[in-house]
Amino acid sequence: MKKHNFSAGPCILPQSVLQKSAEAVLNFNNLNLSLIEISHRSKDFVEVMETAQSLALVHLQLQNKGYKALFLQGGASMQFLMTAYNLLEKKAAYLNTGTWSEKAIKEAKMLGEVIEVASSKSENFNFIPKNYNIPKDADYFHCTSNNTIYGTQMQDFPKTEIPLVCDMSSDIFSRQLDFSKFGLIYAGAQKNMGPAGTTLVVIKEEILGKVSRAIPSMLNYKVHLDKDSMFNTPPVFSVYVSMLTMQWLKDSGGISAIEKVNNEKAALLYSEIDRNALFEGFVSKKEDRSKMNATFNLKNDGLKATFDDHLKQAGINGINGHRSIGGYRASMYNALPLESVQVLVDVMQTVEKGA
Amino acid sequence: MKKHNFSAGPCILPQSVLQKSAEAVLNFNNLNLSLIEISHRSKDFVEVMETAQSLALVHLQLQNKGYKALFLQGGASMQFLMTAYNLLEKKAAYLNTGTWSEKAIKEAKMLGEVIEVASSKSENFNFIPKNYNIPKDADYFHCTSNNTIYGTQMQDFPKTEIPLVCDMSSDIFSRQLDFSKFGLIYAGAQKNMGPAGTTLVVIKEEILGKVSRAIPSMLNYKVHLDKDSMFNTPPVFSVYVSMLTMQWLKDSGGISAIEKVNNEKAALLYSEIDRNALFEGFVSKKEDRSKMNATFNLKNDGLKATFDDHLKQAGINGINGHRSIGGYRASMYNALPLESVQVLVDVMQTVEKGA
Repeated sequence: MKKHNFSAGPCILPQSVLQKSAEAVLNFNNLNLSLIEISHRSKDFVEVMETAQSLALVHLQLQNKGYKALFLQGGASMQFLMTAYNLLEKKAAYLNTGTWSEKAIKEAKMLGEVIEVASSKSENFNFIPKNYNIPKDADYFHCTSNNTIYGTQMQDFPKTEIPLVCDMSSDIFSRQLDFSKFGLIYAGAQKNMGPAGTTLVVIKEEILGKVSRAIPSMLNYKVHLDKDSMFNTPPVFSVYVSMLTMQWLKDSGGISAIEKVNNEKAALLYSEIDRNALFEGFVSKKEDRSKMNATFNLKNDGLKATFDDHLKQAGINGINGHRSIGGYRASMYNALPLESVQVLVDVMQTVEKGA
Repeated sequence: MKKHNFSAGPCILPQSVLQKSAEAVLNFNNLNLSLIEISHRSKDFVEVMETAQSLALVHLQLQNKGYKALFLQGGASMQFLMTAYNLLEKKAAYLNTGTWSEKAIKEAKMLGEVIEVASSKSENFNFIPKNYNIPKDADYFHCTSNNTIYGTQMQDFPKTEIPLVCDMSSDIFSRQLDFSKFGLIYAGAQKNMGPAGTTLVVIKEEILGKVSRAIPSMLNYKVHLDKDSMFNTPPVFSVYVSMLTMQWLKDSGGISAIEKVNNEKAALLYSEIDRNALFEGFVSKKEDRSKMNATFNLKNDGLKATFDDHLKQAGINGINGHRSIGGYRASMYNALPLESVQVLVDVMQTVEKGA
């Protein structure tokens, strides 16, 4: 029996994507060769890379608007460094909404001054700060759109004249936004886009070329742009599976269609968390709740063994909270069906009846 | 019909490895979950990472000798930068044997002085320089053990007191060497170790910690060592397939056994290149010939269409030379069976008889 996979990432992918990926590992495009044993400069793989780049821009509605899409390696952690290397000349403004923001800030500080415009650290990041000022003379403003660990998500993004840089690792392709407001968007693949091992970077080209430092080749967006993500051997399998996942999203009606399902899933689970007296949500302000990662606790720890046992019996996987906050975390990425959330809600109600 | 895959990289992998990899994409370890949709911190994946690290050290006979193995992202290209970032305080010595050496030199020059101890550039890198002096006060000596593009391979490594750093991307695990002579060995996976997307770095820990600069987290070997290659989400699929390939190598008798086969394959092809009047080898000194990549040309370009047609009919893939030198390149990595080389030799003889 296939599990109900609530893992925070790497996470659930569409079953049809897994099936096609497995087939490509054995015989890709009927070449009688595996996807992972052909040249990345072969016609067949170049087409994969081009399709992946194009699909990313199509989903974000950024075609013909001065943006390019790259598939790089190193995850969001490498982007913490690359964004600063390529964009930070004197000072940059950062919003601190959790561990990943803090890591981004740490790397940026090696290359220039960092203004932390606001932080929710004193409340263990259980809300999203609002009404902060962004210095107009900063080189860019950086934020994390969704905070996987705490289950918070930015619903609005500040209006500013300086480039908006956003780590969308855990909610890319999950909701409609005006993506043309952003100068640079990056996302590790392993949530809504594909398997671990590649990172999507979408850049408005005009924001580049404004720092005076020399940039090492592998950290230089311009180098990767000039070679269409093929400066060196790309992570072939991860890019291919990402392409398949973006095709699945397109075939499923795109972001607007998946957003409706994501809203239904989140509404179903959060209304149970709020209704069921055994549970309480972690996030202090309901408007900051993430539609990707719902964090909650059992009010009575004595019921933990019973709840965990029922979860296991129901085939629910990956629902433990992050070690830094404990409790539970149900990640409801694009590929998770509504039915899986219903199974979780049923378990919560079963435990309630038995308690 | 499965092709005879002479691709220079990404390249042929053992069929049993491809089969197990495809199965794991559908259902890993009978978890009823895909390998690529589980947490990298799950017991099942942590075991994969630990096994991969251990197998790398076992194959190189470096267990309990102060070495650690890492699986990182970014390919050899990222190692060009990381080696210099972590080891170059004032000046470093580099041997220039081709494009990849040159790229390593370029990145190192951003961080300190580079002494090029010797170069074969004036002869289009068709030999390996010997009898050069390595400055004793350099921080390390860097070389490329096998030059995929030109088909040259270092047979001997210099004796020096300073750390020996070697890019073994294209001949790792192919031959016996005293690996304990090296301070740092790195290799992009996509030749003898696995699919593109991960890079093996084997480090003698005592050589670290000697530079004064601050090192960004993702470029810092110490950070990755402290987290056992799990500082951030690793490229799960590429590490898993690398582990399977190293297990296959172990089950096949290890490096000593595969080296015999590699020697047989190289002897078979090079003796045909030398015997058959239609062909000539690219490398000027026979002792510098690579056992991984044999580069050769048709003396008479008029036979190219005929030769190419026979190659295609025989199911031979990936044998075009690199665009920078033209001609042909037969890559004979560990997973390529002797039979495939025999098929190639047969085609060469068929064309000879018809000419």
